[in-house]
Amino acid sequence: MYVQRGTPYFDGAAYVSQCPINPGEIFTYKFKVDRAGTYFYHGHFGMQRSGGLYGSLIVDLPASKKEPFAYDGEHSILLNDWWHKSIYEQELGLNSVPFRFVGEPQSLLIEGRGKYNCSLYPATVPPTPGCLTCNATSPKCAPHVIPVTPGKTYRLRIASVASLSSLNFILEGHKMTVVQADGRYIKPFDVYNLDVYSGQTYDVLFTADQDASKNYWAAINVRGRNPKTPTGLAVLQYLPNEATLLPTTPAPVSPIWNDTATSISLAKQILAKVGYEAAPPKKSHRTIVILGTQNNINGNLKWALNNISYVHNPTPVIAALKYNIKGAIDSTPPPDYPVQDYNIFVPPKPSLSANYGSPLYVFKRGSVVDVIVQNSNTLTPNNSEIHPWHLHGHDFWVLGYGQGMYDSTKDAASFNLIDPPVRNTAAVFPYGWVALRFVADNPGAWPFHCHIEPHFHMGMGTVFAEGIHNLPKLPSQTLGCGLTKGLHR
Amino acid sequence: MYVQRGTPYFDGAAYVSQCPINPGEIFTYKFKVDRAGTYFYHGHFGMQRSGGLYGSLIVDLPASKKEPFAYDGEHSILLNDWWHKSIYEQELGLNSVPFRFVGEPQSLLIEGRGKYNCSLYPATVPPTPGCLTCNATSPKCAPHVIPVTPGKTYRLRIASVASLSSLNFILEGHKMTVVQADGRYIKPFDVYNLDVYSGQTYDVLFTADQDASKNYWAAINVRGRNPKTPTGLAVLQYLPNEATLLPTTPAPVSPIWNDTATSISLAKQILAKVGYEAAPPKKSHRTIVILGTQNNINGNLKWALNNISYVHNPTPVIAALKYNIKGAIDSTPPPDYPVQDYNIFVPPKPSLSANYGSPLYVFKRGSVVDVIVQNSNTLTPNNSEIHPWHLHGHDFWVLGYGQGMYDSTKDAASFNLIDPPVRNTAAVFPYGWVALRFVADNPGAWPFHCHIEPHFHMGMGTVFAEGIHNLPKLPSQTLGCGLTKGLHR
Repeated sequence: MYVQRGTPYFDGAAYVSQCPINPGEIFTYKFKVDRAGTYFYHGHFGMQRSGGLYGSLIVDLPASKKEPFAYDGEHSILLNDWWHKSIYEQELGLNSVPFRFVGEPQSLLIEGRGKYNCSLYPATVPPTPGCLTCNATSPKCAPHVIPVTPGKTYRLRIASVASLSSLNFILEGHKMTVVQADGRYIKPFDVYNLDVYSGQTYDVLFTADQDASKNYWAAINVRGRNPKTPTGLAVLQYLPNEATLLPTTPAPVSPIWNDTATSISLAKQILAKVGYEAAPPKKSHRTIVILGTQNNINGNLKWALNNISYVHNPTPVIAALKYNIKGAIDSTPPPDYPVQDYNIFVPPKPSLSANYGSPLYVFKRGSVVDVIVQNSNTLTPNNSEIHPWHLHGHDFWVLGYGQGMYDSTKDAASFNLIDPPVRNTAAVFPYGWVALRFVADNPGAWPFHCHIEPHFHMGMGTVFAEGIHNLPKLPSQTLGCGLTKGLHR
Repeated sequence: MYVQRGTPYFDGAAYVSQCPINPGEIFTYKFKVDRAGTYFYHGHFGMQRSGGLYGSLIVDLPASKKEPFAYDGEHSILLNDWWHKSIYEQELGLNSVPFRFVGEPQSLLIEGRGKYNCSLYPATVPPTPGCLTCNATSPKCAPHVIPVTPGKTYRLRIASVASLSSLNFILEGHKMTVVQADGRYIKPFDVYNLDVYSGQTYDVLFTADQDASKNYWAAINVRGRNPKTPTGLAVLQYLPNEATLLPTTPAPVSPIWNDTATSISLAKQILAKVGYEAAPPKKSHRTIVILGTQNNINGNLKWALNNISYVHNPTPVIAALKYNIKGAIDSTPPPDYPVQDYNIFVPPKPSLSANYGSPLYVFKRGSVVDVIVQNSNTLTPNNSEIHPWHLHGHDFWVLGYGQGMYDSTKDAASFNLIDPPVRNTAAVFPYGWVALRFVADNPGAWPFHCHIEPHFHMGMGTVFAEGIHNLPKLPSQTLGCGLTKGLHR
């Protein structure tokens, strides 16, 4: 989730910034860690992130600098959801006619550990040594432990790589002060539970100020969907209690799954820390309104943006542009606006059928771009889902959230141009829109996509590019697929 | 299974003759069909053949030429085995510690159709429209039909792409005359059932000379293993009977699975048709004895040849040799002989542990090579398996089969140098050896491997090469992986 300033070819996005890495190959990513903060990395090919190819990426401040907040220790809290079916089966189901959904996750994981409800899935996992039953006391099945010393203050570096689920994080009985979002400073605010959408990170502080004779739950529950997945649990261990001293309290409960108002209210509380993050430019040079819809394309269930459902071209976009490779990319620019008078409150009309494509928005280098992401009703009546939108290569200012159809004549006036938060991932809520502003100042080709892995796989993405001709030659290890074979560099 | 004379880069073997084809890419294979006969094609990456990436490849004689046998019509009979678990799950199991075997196939397929025993696998297949139950009468579940006119003679072009199973083919109540093996002429002989090992093809003639009021079964059963897989069945339809008139007879029975003597006796009956196929050179320039063993490498179950378990290098062998790419291949030649005094009748001693490698045997162009493949006991006491050995880029003469440890001082004297069959795939039987001779006259790099897909995946293969520097430059679409990225051609 690093912006890769100056090294767009090490962004890791297959078919956009490089060719996929073949089995058995070694590929070295080399980039400057030019900003401290909480980040993560993951595979960006197929559904490899869901398959487990991810990890935390923590960048410390240089010794000469200090955070504007104090703490005694820190812990990584990497969140995920998990299925018993392999990603290959999941992917096959997504591409099948009729569509086969893998269903809701069996488990929610904190730092890679979780449990599942055996009575719902009696025989879906092959027995592995040491973990034959799901309530085994083996260390392999034990929950993750977060040890703290009573009275001390800790920084939790929370990140979600969830495939599908929007999560809500709770530290039982403890108030949390949120100080950073996506590695950028925000105006501190207090919460007892925190929504974390896939792709986002939050840094929170808490003090171990509760009854020190007990341990507590750290917990995650699902937002915006209503699965039977059990709460994901870790143990907040008050030293010197044993880690095996499990709390006797029930698993913490989050706001009810469809309480969108609470989620929107939380999102609006997140503002930049003035003096630490710059305010956005006052005007933009170009505005793009991207309408996300769920569509049926010849029987295939897909997502589309302004009627184009994204598929990868076999030649990486960055190379296609840099070397002007004929026939490598769609030469027709995608539309800057949705079709007129689209009704976002009903399922898409069959007459407005989407098509497959590889859309590419090219921006003038250094220009200021506004992107409005507009949500809509899915193919199911009275249904609209949460989508966390993630941009590579840039942070953006989140200028505002709104409900209903975005209306440029009045909604733009409501944008927060004073202290909008700076982020790389922002949720668009059911039937709503989110307005993002960024400066196209990082030469390269950059995916902009829903961070829900099956949604991107089903077409919910596009590519932004700027200043490609200012790039030096591309490293040879990033090439070798599509029309970049035999390229003389 | 084409020898690809002059076009080794279109042989299709990933990491040997070309880079794998990336998702979304189009790759065109262009080669001369310089010999008529019954062949097939398949994916040669991972376990794609088991996944269904295969088909028949029938090359007709030119109009000016005639076969030395007569027939009125012909049918393709492509054989396979089939699992409900995806190849990705199968592959994961093969690479896991402890090893997880997918088990025996659920079905045997004739021309892609088969059935399975529902009572053994109650819920392993997701319901698909039209095939909700395994005894459905839907056309999707119907067996393959082979229509014949009573009294006429037919040529069956039988080929096996089986992943694991050695098969025995029966045409209920009908005598078959075998006239070709692997596309080459053999001395015709009659059988009522025929062993077909994975990788092999047979052309057989039969006359529809039975009671024309009935239809008959075409059937396949497993040899050398003892699964519960039901007999694979197709319908031999005597026109004008309806195809839906199923035989009332039970599924035909093959020789008992562990009756190796019958299989060996059949193999020895296969001889070249003199005058149609050349006799082998009388002497060879080099003899290699390859001992195949099952090994445990750090807990992984593997196969090895002379103690080397084959893994792919990320750079295709042909390119590594042609362009002298440093560090792309193992420079140490693999051994021409097994360790001395190896006892093939017991499991391998742990002290003789195998290692991973990418062995490459380089031959002088035009030289005559003998390869003896030696079978042995697996890691299980009193167990040795059938392995069908397949060579790319060449046909070989099968000079002989023997039991026990090959002894060059006496066994070479028993070689058939008069009319050995010319083939590209030959089985080595339990505790036995097979002797093959070929002329290294096709410049290129060529896999030589067990055609059982999981066995090759577990290391049972090697690469032969000759005359690479006589090749023209390699087509750019075959490159782009490993160290062939950025290659200036």
